[in-house]
Amino acid sequence: MLEQQVVHRYSVIGRSVPKIDGGEKVLGLARYLDDLELPNMLYGKILRSRYPHARIVRIDTGEAWRVGGVAAVITARDVSFNKMGILKDQPPLKDGKVRSVRDEVAAVAAVSEEAAERAVEAIRVEYEELDAVFDPEEAAKPGAPLVHEELGTNIIDLNFHFSTDSDMEGVFEGAYAVVEDEYRLQYMNASPLGTMGCIAYYNELGELTVYTNTQAPFLYRHELSQVLGLDPSKVRVVQPEIGGAFGRGMDIYPLDPITAALSIKTRRPVRILYTREEELQYAPPRQPAIIRMKTAATRDGKLLARDADVILDAGAYVSWGPFDGRVMMATTTGLYVVPHVRFRATVVYTNNPYCGTQRGAGNPQITFAIEQQMDSLAEELGLDPVEFRLLNANTPNMVTPQGMRISSCGMRECLQAVADAIGWRGRRMAGPGRGIGFAAYFHVGGGARVYRSDGCGSTISVDDYGVVTLVTGSTDLGTGSDTALAQIVAEELGIPLSKVRVVNSGETVRPWDVGTHASRATFVAGNSALMAAREIKRKLLEIASEILLVHPSKIVIRDGVVFSSEDPSKRIEFDKLVRRAHFRQGGEVLTASVFYDPPTEMQDERWMGNLSATYAFGAQAVMVEVDPETGVVKVLKVVSAHDCGRVINPAAAEGQVHGGVAMGLGYTLSEELVLERGRVINASLAEYLLPTSADTPPIKAIFVETEDRYGPYGAKGIGETGCIPIPAAVANAVYDAVGKRPKTLPIKPSQILGAG
Amino acid sequence: MLEQQVVHRYSVIGRSVPKIDGGEKVLGLARYLDDLELPNMLYGKILRSRYPHARIVRIDTGEAWRVGGVAAVITARDVSFNKMGILKDQPPLKDGKVRSVRDEVAAVAAVSEEAAERAVEAIRVEYEELDAVFDPEEAAKPGAPLVHEELGTNIIDLNFHFSTDSDMEGVFEGAYAVVEDEYRLQYMNASPLGTMGCIAYYNELGELTVYTNTQAPFLYRHELSQVLGLDPSKVRVVQPEIGGAFGRGMDIYPLDPITAALSIKTRRPVRILYTREEELQYAPPRQPAIIRMKTAATRDGKLLARDADVILDAGAYVSWGPFDGRVMMATTTGLYVVPHVRFRATVVYTNNPYCGTQRGAGNPQITFAIEQQMDSLAEELGLDPVEFRLLNANTPNMVTPQGMRISSCGMRECLQAVADAIGWRGRRMAGPGRGIGFAAYFHVGGGARVYRSDGCGSTISVDDYGVVTLVTGSTDLGTGSDTALAQIVAEELGIPLSKVRVVNSGETVRPWDVGTHASRATFVAGNSALMAAREIKRKLLEIASEILLVHPSKIVIRDGVVFSSEDPSKRIEFDKLVRRAHFRQGGEVLTASVFYDPPTEMQDERWMGNLSATYAFGAQAVMVEVDPETGVVKVLKVVSAHDCGRVINPAAAEGQVHGGVAMGLGYTLSEELVLERGRVINASLAEYLLPTSADTPPIKAIFVETEDRYGPYGAKGIGETGCIPIPAAVANAVYDAVGKRPKTLPIKPSQILGAG
Repeated sequence: MLEQQVVHRYSVIGRSVPKIDGGEKVLGLARYLDDLELPNMLYGKILRSRYPHARIVRIDTGEAWRVGGVAAVITARDVSFNKMGILKDQPPLKDGKVRSVRDEVAAVAAVSEEAAERAVEAIRVEYEELDAVFDPEEAAKPGAPLVHEELGTNIIDLNFHFSTDSDMEGVFEGAYAVVEDEYRLQYMNASPLGTMGCIAYYNELGELTVYTNTQAPFLYRHELSQVLGLDPSKVRVVQPEIGGAFGRGMDIYPLDPITAALSIKTRRPVRILYTREEELQYAPPRQPAIIRMKTAATRDGKLLARDADVILDAGAYVSWGPFDGRVMMATTTGLYVVPHVRFRATVVYTNNPYCGTQRGAGNPQITFAIEQQMDSLAEELGLDPVEFRLLNANTPNMVTPQGMRISSCGMRECLQAVADAIGWRGRRMAGPGRGIGFAAYFHVGGGARVYRSDGCGSTISVDDYGVVTLVTGSTDLGTGSDTALAQIVAEELGIPLSKVRVVNSGETVRPWDVGTHASRATFVAGNSALMAAREIKRKLLEIASEILLVHPSKIVIRDGVVFSSEDPSKRIEFDKLVRRAHFRQGGEVLTASVFYDPPTEMQDERWMGNLSATYAFGAQAVMVEVDPETGVVKVLKVVSAHDCGRVINPAAAEGQVHGGVAMGLGYTLSEELVLERGRVINASLAEYLLPTSADTPPIKAIFVETEDRYGPYGAKGIGETGCIPIPAAVANAVYDAVGKRPKTLPIKPSQILGAG
Repeated sequence: MLEQQVVHRYSVIGRSVPKIDGGEKVLGLARYLDDLELPNMLYGKILRSRYPHARIVRIDTGEAWRVGGVAAVITARDVSFNKMGILKDQPPLKDGKVRSVRDEVAAVAAVSEEAAERAVEAIRVEYEELDAVFDPEEAAKPGAPLVHEELGTNIIDLNFHFSTDSDMEGVFEGAYAVVEDEYRLQYMNASPLGTMGCIAYYNELGELTVYTNTQAPFLYRHELSQVLGLDPSKVRVVQPEIGGAFGRGMDIYPLDPITAALSIKTRRPVRILYTREEELQYAPPRQPAIIRMKTAATRDGKLLARDADVILDAGAYVSWGPFDGRVMMATTTGLYVVPHVRFRATVVYTNNPYCGTQRGAGNPQITFAIEQQMDSLAEELGLDPVEFRLLNANTPNMVTPQGMRISSCGMRECLQAVADAIGWRGRRMAGPGRGIGFAAYFHVGGGARVYRSDGCGSTISVDDYGVVTLVTGSTDLGTGSDTALAQIVAEELGIPLSKVRVVNSGETVRPWDVGTHASRATFVAGNSALMAAREIKRKLLEIASEILLVHPSKIVIRDGVVFSSEDPSKRIEFDKLVRRAHFRQGGEVLTASVFYDPPTEMQDERWMGNLSATYAFGAQAVMVEVDPETGVVKVLKVVSAHDCGRVINPAAAEGQVHGGVAMGLGYTLSEELVLERGRVINASLAEYLLPTSADTPPIKAIFVETEDRYGPYGAKGIGETGCIPIPAAVANAVYDAVGKRPKTLPIKPSQILGAG
């Protein structure tokens, strides 16, 4: 009987609800890029370089033009593109020189995929091969082949350097315990269900419409306009349903202006959509890293210092990949309380494929090093690894050395929770061949001001049936972020979730948003939606006050009914109130438009600044079994605890955790793009080993709800975090099982069986 | 040199600009209903009644189902529709009984138009014919065949009765001069380029999307949901480009729920689109009328009294046609200053096709009577017809007997202007066989509160390039109303027109609007857009004030530059200011959402109330030549003067006048749907005589700009008015030429040659 008295504080928030767009996806009604077929559409294909580094002597497109059904063949000579990329170092079509085998040399549009393919094969290119460099450490040395000769060096100065002390060596010299090691992380493909591509249509009025699965439609429009030299007001970006992105969609790539150029030449819609093989070869992979790290502790188990030296291979051009260095820096300085920290990353050009950012954005990489060193240090100090972590855990209301102001922080609770849930009793107690490992994480949880605006706009309008339409700048990548926004609006307005519609299919009618990245959708777009809903509610209560003759402060809206909190008999249905507001002289239809920009700071040139409005924390425990004969690591169980503030939709949050863990396990154990002289040689899902559901162990998600004071209903981000600690936790579990530390990903039997 | 000093008060308002969507229309890029082809789409056809009045004994659809490619065959038995229409007197598919040859008996969806056609022909229907009634006066008599037996009468009580006096006969008896006559007006097809139709798609989630060329998407959604018994929140209405409507799109028709039902049966998109022949037969025609009127004047040339008795044949069901009676009433009481007025309309059901409203909505019909009587009375009084009109013209700030409050009024100026422009020197001075006639008009010019809300919502957002997007509830029927809205926004924000985009393609993201009718788009949607633009401007000036260090009241925005009115060197470009507002900590993207409902009143049961926020006036002069041998009337010249307040876009306003005059000339001289036992027998453009450009005389448009105090930038409506006075003016010109008064439309040689 007592349980019935427990009143749930919210009606919609904190409830597990199906995705609002789940039905149309399950029924095949949702339209992805692949489903779009514009009238009169052409199909494009790109010819790439035969060599990782070469001069282009001559391109002969004569034969290609003669292939039946060809509408356009273009090379760099036929278009006037501006250079693209974060450092504007890449021409969309290469002229004079190619710097990787991914380099685009020519492109074709034809009436069918087959005709385009045949035409691409008919293009003759004469090259003069150049010496190439594939090892970033070699590339950084004087005398190495230069990827961009005009720069005189392969080293890219992104100023990734932070230090709390001028004499870090002195700090380490005085330490009681120090561990030091080197870690190497591989190329990984994000492998979303929806491959890269776009449809571009440039019409006779000089208007370009692009259908794209970008994560950042407003930045995309800006960048694409710049590369094409078009007036941005003539460029429209439409996002169909997006089948995942994981960071890939944060930049534009040569295929975007190339598709547009083919349409500009033909005045017909042109589609370029990668096959899975192309995706594996040409989509930007996760940034690989070589990490040299040392960590020191005091005799009483307190972290004293951490020093990281990272080498990042940008590839031939700079996309977002190397900027993972910023996140690595933040975690180096911010994960656990470390008074003395130094971080430095060297970024170099090579003739490898260039990298993009990917879920976690450098955080899985650096956490792999940090958390293995935590494990080693605990051992050196003779401390239980969980104890040691708890001793040094982040806490609420602290400030990191880079000036990041932590508001809520449930890190200790998360560590304790995973230790309890996995049945931790101490080292080497998991049974024969088995081991348990731990790792925690620190990540932005309230946006990330890496652009001058980190804001999001929302417009809400309420129709005569009480249906509330939210037009948001935010992009749902398929994660369910729209559902969270709908829940926030439904909760604030006291109406059922089924009465909220979310619209976000292009930038035309949407207010600005920086894009979905940095786990920001629920936090930033959620706060924006909440602001708009509050404005609508304010207006509604004013009108209800006139009708019910009750002061607005005494009026409650719940389950679609507006009533006096003091006399619930004074009531009116939500939709009826809306109609009363509208259908009268001087009536009004309720609409509100707002813009929310989080209270954060751009970091200064010393990398100081409160980048995010709040931060997310968590911990994972992993139990593994290692086959002593084969060296094969089997993950038996993952427990993943998250302080993501209040959980808006437990089912969706759990889905994010499961997805993140599975992605992290692939990264840890099986996924690796194997390069040979800069070329991906395992570009098929038969050889590139994505984990399947059969490979995925039981995953237990635990939520430590801290109710953040800045988050919408106390929520923080959770989009990326599931994948961050996994590699470190598995490595620590392997060490617990067999006493060997995997320092390279993916963990291979050879590492386990070899000398440790 | 002096002329260069004349400063145009506005930058965009009052300038002739091309339609903002003109380019895409000219280039064939605009997509009309006819251009839409949804994947997997079926084509629908409707079987109609063989008889004007009959019982349905049996329907056999067996053969129809056996036609190849047929996906659905439905009759009333297969669906559960609610009744539709203003009086809910019409089942979309007829069961038991048919009441006109337009009645829908069954419908088919098939993979091609041809298969659907064959299947419709294969449906066997057994009828039992009933006595029918086609003459509305006969139908009103006791004992006439009853169209709806259950009502016990064919007379529909719409309460169209207004009188200033209890004893009107007494007023007439005391009059110095009285004229009295009867006028008869025909059926007319609106003949927009785009024929009626819709595409409906009901998906597996129970969501219905309808693509329609309705004029009133929000009312359409409501009505359609009601007829289908669907939750309106599951119904979406999308408007592609609209190729004209002229009132036809103010109601929904059986084809709408029938198309939806075919999609509900098949779960596939279904399109029904009328051929031109179907359009002529089945689209709702202009309301025909029999008008008996008398008008009295005093000895000194003042109007004393007007009395109108009107018979309106609704047809078999009630759509908006008979509600033209309201407009007829307003003009009877409001055109010229008449102290004593009475109006009565009798509305009856017959077995004729039912009528819709059409440009002018009863006003051309009643003005035909009123203005001929003005002409006759002037003659009886021995007064010049222009003089007589000027003596009795409406004036600013008067109130009509129905309580309509006239604000601005340029009627006298219009009358004088057309007399001057046509070269009026007095009766019978136009030359042999020639004549000049005049007529004036009175029409709503600031919306018409015939629905409880006459409002319109607008949302404006400004992007980082200074592009301003207006999302309006308003519907552009092809008239250029969107261009007027864009001009208003551009003017208010001081930016070039090219920087404004207007979005209005469905109700999903649009705020409510009652629909485009009653010449309200520029006035109501214009005021709404203006409100939103002012809110944006207020925010912009605040931010500019911070940057320029100038008080907001001293800041001007013009031609895309924001500057101090006192020191123009303090300046910033509009787009730069927008970016400054956005890209800063705590920045904002400028958005505003507003709802404008005009300050008007619903008329009460006595038909009293200020229906419109302002009223439009004007006058036309027509010169004709009548061939004495053949009786053929040739219009040589039309001068059309309009007080539509400030003219926003002179080229577009002139286009409206030209189009209205041409439409009015067709009504006057050639267009007539000829019915034989309720069936249109001239349903082709070879027999239904639309005027061509070769039939259209030189038309001179004159604008008397009164700058109305309620209108956006002083504008009033002009969409309908060009066609209102034409029939009367031509009739008066014919009388001036040959001394015979045409009392029936269209004017035929037989009327001229016969006894006058």
